[in-house]
Amino acid sequence: MHFTSEQLLDDGVLERRFTLGEIPGVLWTSGSAPAPLILMGHPGGLDRMHPRLAARARQTVAEGYAAATIELPGAGVRPRVAAADQARADLRRAVEAGERVSDDIVDRLVLPLVDQAVPEWRATLDALQELPEIGGPVGFSGGVISIGVRLAVVEPRIVAAALFAGSYVPRAIIEEARQVTIPLHVLLQWDDEGNDRQMALDLFDAFGSKEKTLNANMGGHTGVPAYAGDAANRFFARHLG
Amino acid sequence: MHFTSEQLLDDGVLERRFTLGEIPGVLWTSGSAPAPLILMGHPGGLDRMHPRLAARARQTVAEGYAAATIELPGAGVRPRVAAADQARADLRRAVEAGERVSDDIVDRLVLPLVDQAVPEWRATLDALQELPEIGGPVGFSGGVISIGVRLAVVEPRIVAAALFAGSYVPRAIIEEARQVTIPLHVLLQWDDEGNDRQMALDLFDAFGSKEKTLNANMGGHTGVPAYAGDAANRFFARHLG
Repeated sequence: MHFTSEQLLDDGVLERRFTLGEIPGVLWTSGSAPAPLILMGHPGGLDRMHPRLAARARQTVAEGYAAATIELPGAGVRPRVAAADQARADLRRAVEAGERVSDDIVDRLVLPLVDQAVPEWRATLDALQELPEIGGPVGFSGGVISIGVRLAVVEPRIVAAALFAGSYVPRAIIEEARQVTIPLHVLLQWDDEGNDRQMALDLFDAFGSKEKTLNANMGGHTGVPAYAGDAANRFFARHLG
Repeated sequence: MHFTSEQLLDDGVLERRFTLGEIPGVLWTSGSAPAPLILMGHPGGLDRMHPRLAARARQTVAEGYAAATIELPGAGVRPRVAAADQARADLRRAVEAGERVSDDIVDRLVLPLVDQAVPEWRATLDALQELPEIGGPVGFSGGVISIGVRLAVVEPRIVAAALFAGSYVPRAIIEEARQVTIPLHVLLQWDDEGNDRQMALDLFDAFGSKEKTLNANMGGHTGVPAYAGDAANRFFARHLG
């Protein structure tokens, strides 16, 4: 892990960009005492997403955590993945034609992404935990929800996850969700124009966790109300301290 | 409205039982300054429900509100309603036989109850608002959810409702829900053994309110986790002050 830039923001949050091999990432911290880490998921495109991610990260740091994220495979400055681009084009065509998005398209779009991204998030976690500013339990917050599901199954350092049900979910991931046992807080935008609500409800139902909350709100894909963010903060306060 | 007993609880909450005509009720307050009122719904059987209602009421009063409830028609010490008893027996028989509960049974059980209970709650509100300890906006919290829906449509003094999706809902009430415009916080126990989850989701979808939150948790009908109560408190703090 190499830090490539750092910036002290006006609220005292230190934002550091890094690379881990070819993967760019961002770390937000405050002070030097070890803080529990929240990994922040997103749909890909770190520069495009930066304003929203930085706002979430600053709130997260204000709650006493460190926050970090990395670019997804095939997104932003990383090399394109031709098969994923093809699946995304097929998905767009189906949505524009008013057709149901087929399981095949969802599988081709999401499964290779999960297979590649999850080891990258775990390697990032290895590197971050070497830093003196990071200590204690780890949470995952955001999307892509299928990446969050796989991480919750395979990564024992993640003890709680606030998942954003804002993307298509392969049937295989819904099956995988039955193995998840950590506490979950699932955020669903009820009228999300780019999401399949029934699939999100099926996924929530499948999770094996004894403690799971579905928090559904109005406002469309990007219109998550501020009080939904507060609810997620309270969830992490219960589980990460 | 006649007060029939009063008891000062150890946390300084004053619990007063009253009657409004033949209807028994309970009022919980603290101090004499006018407080916003939260009407607390329940499934009927005030004495049986008293421990849980009093616990909810004391939390509500601790948040700065007055809390009140009344007995439902046909429940507790009130005269039985033969048609409702018959519908309840039919419902039990269907559930025990593993059959789908028919719309006819749900209609016969719930619609006459709503028709009778709602004017009683409104008359109770009239009487309570005469008291110097009650002032400001009014909320409704709990079940029977169909009563909450009708109240939200017809009673303009109710400005926010936290509804418990813990009972069967007639199709006609789902249609009525489209007229609801006040902010809603809907609590659903995901694996509620005495509830129809899809009906609860259909009802949530139908509400016309621009601000509505579905908060679904595990734990069965009576296993609402404490943090779900906290979330409802935060909802009322946003809307009743």
